[in-house]
Amino acid sequence: MIAELISVGTEILLGNIVNTNSAYLAEKCAQLGLSLYYQTVVGDNEERMRETIRTALGRSDIVILTGGLGPTEDDLTKEVTAEVMGLALKEDPHSRRLLDDYLAQYQKNDAQRRITSNNYKQAMVPEGAAVLDNHNGTAPGLIMEKNGKTAILLPGPPGEMKAMFEEYVFPWLRKKQPEMIFSQMIKICSIGESQVAEEIQDLIESQTNPTIAPYAKTGEVHLRITAKGNSRKECEELIQPVVRELEHRFGKNIFAESENMSLEEAVTVLLWERNLTLSTAESCTGGAVAARIVNVPGASDVLMQGMVTYSNQAKRKTLGVKEETLNLYGAVSEECAGEMAEGGCSFAGTDVCLSVTGIAGPGGGTPEKPVGTVFMGCCVKGKTTVREYHFIGNRARIREQTVAHGLAFLRACILENS
Amino acid sequence: MIAELISVGTEILLGNIVNTNSAYLAEKCAQLGLSLYYQTVVGDNEERMRETIRTALGRSDIVILTGGLGPTEDDLTKEVTAEVMGLALKEDPHSRRLLDDYLAQYQKNDAQRRITSNNYKQAMVPEGAAVLDNHNGTAPGLIMEKNGKTAILLPGPPGEMKAMFEEYVFPWLRKKQPEMIFSQMIKICSIGESQVAEEIQDLIESQTNPTIAPYAKTGEVHLRITAKGNSRKECEELIQPVVRELEHRFGKNIFAESENMSLEEAVTVLLWERNLTLSTAESCTGGAVAARIVNVPGASDVLMQGMVTYSNQAKRKTLGVKEETLNLYGAVSEECAGEMAEGGCSFAGTDVCLSVTGIAGPGGGTPEKPVGTVFMGCCVKGKTTVREYHFIGNRARIREQTVAHGLAFLRACILENS
Repeated sequence: MIAELISVGTEILLGNIVNTNSAYLAEKCAQLGLSLYYQTVVGDNEERMRETIRTALGRSDIVILTGGLGPTEDDLTKEVTAEVMGLALKEDPHSRRLLDDYLAQYQKNDAQRRITSNNYKQAMVPEGAAVLDNHNGTAPGLIMEKNGKTAILLPGPPGEMKAMFEEYVFPWLRKKQPEMIFSQMIKICSIGESQVAEEIQDLIESQTNPTIAPYAKTGEVHLRITAKGNSRKECEELIQPVVRELEHRFGKNIFAESENMSLEEAVTVLLWERNLTLSTAESCTGGAVAARIVNVPGASDVLMQGMVTYSNQAKRKTLGVKEETLNLYGAVSEECAGEMAEGGCSFAGTDVCLSVTGIAGPGGGTPEKPVGTVFMGCCVKGKTTVREYHFIGNRARIREQTVAHGLAFLRACILENS
Repeated sequence: MIAELISVGTEILLGNIVNTNSAYLAEKCAQLGLSLYYQTVVGDNEERMRETIRTALGRSDIVILTGGLGPTEDDLTKEVTAEVMGLALKEDPHSRRLLDDYLAQYQKNDAQRRITSNNYKQAMVPEGAAVLDNHNGTAPGLIMEKNGKTAILLPGPPGEMKAMFEEYVFPWLRKKQPEMIFSQMIKICSIGESQVAEEIQDLIESQTNPTIAPYAKTGEVHLRITAKGNSRKECEELIQPVVRELEHRFGKNIFAESENMSLEEAVTVLLWERNLTLSTAESCTGGAVAARIVNVPGASDVLMQGMVTYSNQAKRKTLGVKEETLNLYGAVSEECAGEMAEGGCSFAGTDVCLSVTGIAGPGGGTPEKPVGTVFMGCCVKGKTTVREYHFIGNRARIREQTVAHGLAFLRACILENS
């Protein structure tokens, strides 16, 4: 079955807020095995909304609309959808009672708040529609069906929308789906996007069930393998040989085999399994590597301390980088990165320390060490590895890549040296 | 003129990533005075992409497409747009040279990395198109014009897209607009979105020219005042009284009066103007506050050192937090935050230190100190202020809010105590 998403509202259309509803609903549709081909954002304009809904119902089986269900005159989603589907509106006594209760509650909190009469248009329901109670706001949701087409109307505020989707819509859609869909993620680091694409081109070309979809992230490539079948077991049996083939091709560059495992979590788990403690000594990334590690709940088991040694004085004082190293080779050098990593282990008393020193720009570049030159050092139980990187882009982009490659480098050094 | 946005890519379509590009571009279109009626997301499917692009070019003057410009076979945006517009593709020598340089640079980092032949399709350009160099990746952008319609193709990764939009597309679109549009940004911190909205409701209701549009960001509210006129001078004269009124209403909670001034830059400039040095002592944010400060080029003039003291041992050893403080009040307490800030100033030898300690979750909460409880301390030349915060959301959201409010708190303490 084919689903389609329509977000209604001027706030999203004009960029005042980011459209997180669509990402949420798209992921849920994928999880339900619904094919999704289009997402559209349209403003609170009757004519354009009518055209958008008509097009969507023409090409898709299920159209999920969010927003425009509120009490104001701009809120037209229900009225326009009912019109396009040819369904008349009438007041639903149940919705009217819930609305009265909710508004009474609100007025209790704030006696000044007037209840305007247009609030009651929220209790009007298209004939034959299923009403979805809203426990987090006033506008109920709706499921409208006619001639084999379904329109699902949900409120715009993400908190109201998600709660209603999970309580009513997900189970309703699951029952509609005859086929089981199951997918597994394989996450790769230390190899670029185009190289991964080339190495799996034969698999992608020959794919039917399961399919393989690559997703490029900064410093990572994710491969989603998705199978359709009659049971979860059947899906898993389809997926397993592909996973084994990918393991064969990418070996230890695979850092995770699940959706929810991030690179920082994989590194944290690796440290934890090998009973190693970590510290970081960062210059140009200014603490961003440590902050990524702290993303992981329970990171405190492995990350003892982070040092942001942005000045040469801090590099000397805290990390014990030698003055002659700074004078001879400079702060952005192989030698300094090595001493920072070793000094970090000593100062923080950890088994492992990752150091980063580089030129993020826009200033500070030289012909020998242009902007984007980064040295990273990793000391693992006394064994120090140093590597030189050259990143491209503006300051933010260079730092983002440095952090991602720093985590991959840290992981590689732990695998190699412990 | 009417603009329209199309995001191409399975990642956004299937909800693997949130579509932040559209919010960014929609805001820019508003700033340029372009009308925007539709945003569409479509996957890497030739037929559906063709249909979407044809529809968009039919109803809008300018279509801005993001994504699908990469080296893989899935990347079809350029090919399909050129086909719909009836423009032939040929290799552009300039783009080919830039691509070769970029790939050579990449290979320097990793001799193992092979350059695959499909990379070169990125140098193919539709006839008559303007090529927009990509300084942050391989895929160049394009501006294609025919029969009064314009298609602007930009890469999908937000870092590449934004840099390219600002350098080339914004000035190009500005020239296209017959009327002068001029806008000024007023950025506010330390007050919530709904309070700002309430305090300017009268201004928004009576607005025609200039208009005021509020944008809620984490810990900040941005107000864009936009005027239309025949000259920049005329626009500025329309904007000035509104700016003065906002200055009157929000006073020193306004941290910036320009688009490009970030909160971290405002704090850095403030420190620099008052000749103060800074250090940070972070627990639950794990270095993310320091990393925000290091966003600012030249941050090394003020940020001497950052301490990520995630373990109690590091809090004691590096920051000198008393063992009895940790035993009596715990690491997440007013007392600990105060000692961390004072200890940070001593250890790093700085005038100012911001400390952060809190419970980002998902574990670690108690009835007295639930998840989201954060204490921040700020020591400015010996004067220490501590504040308690309660944030709502998951771990990432709590940390993001902590960093944003931490910078606002730091700014307020410097204004108050120096």
